[in-house]
Amino acid sequence: MFSKEIYTTRRRALAEGVRAAGETGLLLFVGNVEAPAQYKDNCYKFRQDSSWLYFWGLNEPRMAALVDLESGEERIFADDVEIDDIIWMGPQPSVASKAAKVGVSFTAPYAAFAESVRAALAAGRKVHYLPPSRYYNTLFLSELLGIPSASLTPSIPFIKAVIGLRLIKEPCEIEELDKAGALGQEMHSVGRDSIVPGIIEQDIVGKMEAVTLAKGWGVSFPTILTQHGETLHNHLHDKVVAPGKLMVIDAGAEIESGYASDYTRTYPTGGKFTPKQREIYQIVYDCNEFAFSITRPGITYREVHLATMRKMLEGLRALDLVRGDLDEMVSEGIAGLFMPHGLGHNMGLDVHDMEDLGENLVGYDPDQTRARQLGLGSLRMARRLRPGHVITDEPGIYFIPALIDKWKAEGTGKGFVNYDKLQSYYDFGGIRLEDDVLVTETGARRLGPSRLPIAPDDVEAAMAR
Amino acid sequence: MFSKEIYTTRRRALAEGVRAAGETGLLLFVGNVEAPAQYKDNCYKFRQDSSWLYFWGLNEPRMAALVDLESGEERIFADDVEIDDIIWMGPQPSVASKAAKVGVSFTAPYAAFAESVRAALAAGRKVHYLPPSRYYNTLFLSELLGIPSASLTPSIPFIKAVIGLRLIKEPCEIEELDKAGALGQEMHSVGRDSIVPGIIEQDIVGKMEAVTLAKGWGVSFPTILTQHGETLHNHLHDKVVAPGKLMVIDAGAEIESGYASDYTRTYPTGGKFTPKQREIYQIVYDCNEFAFSITRPGITYREVHLATMRKMLEGLRALDLVRGDLDEMVSEGIAGLFMPHGLGHNMGLDVHDMEDLGENLVGYDPDQTRARQLGLGSLRMARRLRPGHVITDEPGIYFIPALIDKWKAEGTGKGFVNYDKLQSYYDFGGIRLEDDVLVTETGARRLGPSRLPIAPDDVEAAMAR
Repeated sequence: MFSKEIYTTRRRALAEGVRAAGETGLLLFVGNVEAPAQYKDNCYKFRQDSSWLYFWGLNEPRMAALVDLESGEERIFADDVEIDDIIWMGPQPSVASKAAKVGVSFTAPYAAFAESVRAALAAGRKVHYLPPSRYYNTLFLSELLGIPSASLTPSIPFIKAVIGLRLIKEPCEIEELDKAGALGQEMHSVGRDSIVPGIIEQDIVGKMEAVTLAKGWGVSFPTILTQHGETLHNHLHDKVVAPGKLMVIDAGAEIESGYASDYTRTYPTGGKFTPKQREIYQIVYDCNEFAFSITRPGITYREVHLATMRKMLEGLRALDLVRGDLDEMVSEGIAGLFMPHGLGHNMGLDVHDMEDLGENLVGYDPDQTRARQLGLGSLRMARRLRPGHVITDEPGIYFIPALIDKWKAEGTGKGFVNYDKLQSYYDFGGIRLEDDVLVTETGARRLGPSRLPIAPDDVEAAMAR
Repeated sequence: MFSKEIYTTRRRALAEGVRAAGETGLLLFVGNVEAPAQYKDNCYKFRQDSSWLYFWGLNEPRMAALVDLESGEERIFADDVEIDDIIWMGPQPSVASKAAKVGVSFTAPYAAFAESVRAALAAGRKVHYLPPSRYYNTLFLSELLGIPSASLTPSIPFIKAVIGLRLIKEPCEIEELDKAGALGQEMHSVGRDSIVPGIIEQDIVGKMEAVTLAKGWGVSFPTILTQHGETLHNHLHDKVVAPGKLMVIDAGAEIESGYASDYTRTYPTGGKFTPKQREIYQIVYDCNEFAFSITRPGITYREVHLATMRKMLEGLRALDLVRGDLDEMVSEGIAGLFMPHGLGHNMGLDVHDMEDLGENLVGYDPDQTRARQLGLGSLRMARRLRPGHVITDEPGIYFIPALIDKWKAEGTGKGFVNYDKLQSYYDFGGIRLEDDVLVTETGARRLGPSRLPIAPDDVEAAMAR
């Protein structure tokens, strides 16, 4: 938790932001409750709502809060523990003492939250809420407001004010992100060192997750670890590690404060790249380096994405996998066949930061429109970069047989894509290389204490140890 | 997954059970969807609903099913994947082919489930559903049926028929429970071997969870690992392991098929019990052995609990911590001061098996009433034992300062409890010892391939290795 001044300042800025949009009424915050895994009393590890964490700091289930836009009053609603709870959970500090730590002096029982909201509605006041990120919050808001879940209408001015604040990371947040980077790198090093032909992928996943559970909250998202990197979100880990394959590991750690890291590396399972693997790897590596080199305040991340796609097509053209004019191929979206995802996304308290608030509101400036093209259309962060933005730099090249067949059958990319040569890449798999990047006043720096080996020679050297 | 005959037979028996209670209409099953951790697309590891797993076997999100009690027809509702999904998730088998594996020939898209239910309701047919164990299912049913969540009325005949089947484990289930026991024991051995003064508790938790993640689904419930065993459900792991303490580890593994294990051991952090610790440990150990020795078909687990409490009081009386007639102390509930929980619970696909269906319906025979006394009132399994029941045997003794002070102030246990001598136990902590037990035709056997060291000498020997 940060100092109470941090939270007080953030809430004041938030209220000012919403008021500046001409709004009145109440800002509603519904913190997370425990999430049942098997049944109501057997829950997943508790994770607080990220916007709650950002503005109210308290990392405990079953809390709600209000900000009164007119009076400026801030209230936290939560229940104190009773003697029965003390037997099971040990003595606990009071809600009032916890609230004081984040600068809030008014507290009341959890049930009083609903009463306050109903009283405000009865008095004709407006209530503002964010899009609920979990089903509990959806159910709670739906029943509180008497609106079917599909008709809930989150407040755009509230959302925009939250995004405006959370998008630019404060120094205290950057410190946490560096720590999350350190833990993510430790997790990845354990993963890399565990790649030995004969081991089951799931074994490596277990070893990696152990690092995050022993020293942090856990994984910042379900680990992707696969010898079929061409399946972008592959969460099966049932294969035996075989030599000669490419192992994509896309994984990150979340530290106790809630901040995330997100790295991807691709390893030759036998410790050495084949010449064919190295050719493609080098292109992806060059793209990762290139994107970072042009990342700086003033450029949009859409421009960085497109320039990086141009670089990738240049590399693929040198291998005769595509043919033609680079600019023409970029505008035709030819790179989407090889990289059907965006170059990166915002990162912070969420690994895809604030995704529950709306991808376009988070990742696009008001003057930007999201493309529909494969690849560029999946770009989650397109904004003009400003110091304090934290983004990922994650180019990849994949050979996805189902997608290649579809394009070929539909005639997409005809004249640009060398489908004949692509035939020999159907069993290649995929490569992705990802770092976490902070936009600084003058350029950018990678988060974390050092950098996971990434140059092909360095990767082979690390695997030889 | 088991053979399709297993699932077909279970569903037929279920329908017969509900019909035998005089019911008609449709049985509704709503499988789990992914559970968001941070935001909708960043989810916890998927866990299917246990009753769904039991009757429909398919371990995938976003499925629903119906059984028509009149026609006997069985239908599975789920969506096939589209080309976009194949890019991200790889090629997937069709819903029809998956349904065939569990003996179901009728399949339809997910949205058709709601249509079928609405059509049945419009035709005046009755629909039966189980208590939803997650907020998604609550929201889904509430909106489908047009009933506020607090007014949902799960079907008692449906619940009872499910419990009747799931409570008696089939041979194929017992095989899985033995496997879960093996993994749980491996997890515990790693935990025990990691107890070294100076290490942070969380480090041990990480190492233990790694075992379950590398070889199974994960933990069957959040690991309890604490040097403050007197806090029964302590999920803080922030303490440094100090010599001279007692470390309670209550943890279990869930294997890929969904079956659970649940073991507790208590270790002297320095490797050797102090004489005072050993005295209390011996009583708990004797109680664990005693409870197992009288567990057999015909006796109720309430009787086993009470006989074990008598044994515990006998041991405590020998230490002059309680005084008086054993039977009188049992009926006065004096043991509840030292063991405020029950002797055990049912276990199966859930570590507290079927807890979402209602603790009393699951754990109590129709002629049994749940006590209100501390301890006995927390007994989750009281039923007359039958072959195929799987239960835990988990006596414990805790010295809970807040509870002792409360009893003393209220005069509870006056004349029985030696509050003066108890003073010197305020910093003792707690001890719990738990095994998983199958009721057999002739008695009982412990699940798992072997037994975690439990006799005090064996524990010290294991820690010395």
